Amino acid sequence: MTNITIFGNGNMGAAIDAIFAKGGAAVQHIGSSEHDAEIQGDIVVLAVPYTALEQITADYGDKLAGKTVVDITNPLDFATFDALVVPTGSSAAAELQKALPSAKVVKAFNTNFAGTLASGQVGDVATTVLIAGDDASAKQALADAVTAGGVRAIDAGALKRAHELEAVGFLQLTLAAQEKVAWDAGFAVVS
Amino acid sequence: MTNITIFGNGNMGAAIDAIFAKGGAAVQHIGSSEHDAEIQGDIVVLAVPYTALEQITADYGDKLAGKTVVDITNPLDFATFDALVVPTGSSAAAELQKALPSAKVVKAFNTNFAGTLASGQVGDVATTVLIAGDDASAKQALADAVTAGGVRAIDAGALKRAHELEAVGFLQLTLAAQEKVAWDAGFAVVS
Repeated sequence: MTNITIFGNGNMGAAIDAIFAKGGAAVQHIGSSEHDAEIQGDIVVLAVPYTALEQITADYGDKLAGKTVVDITNPLDFATFDALVVPTGSSAAAELQKALPSAKVVKAFNTNFAGTLASGQVGDVATTVLIAGDDASAKQALADAVTAGGVRAIDAGALKRAHELEAVGFLQLTLAAQEKVAWDAGFAVVS
Repeated sequence: MTNITIFGNGNMGAAIDAIFAKGGAAVQHIGSSEHDAEIQGDIVVLAVPYTALEQITADYGDKLAGKTVVDITNPLDFATFDALVVPTGSSAAAELQKALPSAKVVKAFNTNFAGTLASGQVGDVATTVLIAGDDASAKQALADAVTAGGVRAIDAGALKRAHELEAVGFLQLTLAAQEKVAWDAGFAVVS
């Protein structure tokens, strides 16, 4: 059985949990008030805002060594909705990999709105999770858990492609915030 | 009548031409062998590879002053398919604006494969042209010409959003090159 740990109890964490549970995985949740929990999952999804990553890496850095750590964040400057807060050309995922050098960091889910993960649809198109990372087996394990839950997954390349995935997520958020796309719509991946 | 000039006779130029012609615009073409043609369009679409922009700005910089200049390029390093050739954090469109300070540079069409412009469909989803630029009336004129031709258009924000549009285009090209999406598919915009 695949063991997965999810940090975060927001709408993204809940939607991702439902996919994994549907696929038969055992899912553990760790809330923001816990700073020293045991991590049961081999795959650890940080379904938290970008600003929460620093505390998690401080609390759990040692325990995340060797784990597949999934970064789902879109590191927007939410005060302006006009820029990202990560260094130019970098990504939240690349910064997380620096903070967790012994973890296998994977970028995923940041191009999916929670509603499209919950429904499995972007309009009439099946939802696709785009996954980037440098460890092929880590990406494959995540893709397997996602597809077991009935959602498509595509390997989008190396961890450096997180920059582009975060650009997609950023652009999609700006379009939704301006009501140019709905929060249960946005970018669909048509194969 | 809207007057449009298109540089470039490739599949993108042809597909864009067909949209404008369907919308009733008068379309002029300027080929790569012409270095001193008169530009008849108020909207000028540079439907050429990124590497061709330098010659066009050298040849036509003065004549493009005051025009709406549409950059459709994806400035990939096609040798590696792993990076863009523009400065980190910038975009082809921002660089073009620097080279043409008196033009109203607009980014558009770079997130659309030619096949999706020709058919008007990304799979079963209507094709959408994403447009970014700093001049609202220039963007609106382009959007009007696109929608007159039966294709949806969405204002994606200021010219700085060309960075994100080029990230979308880059990612989409890598997925197609690896046969993870088809060349007549890719990212669809669901409203």
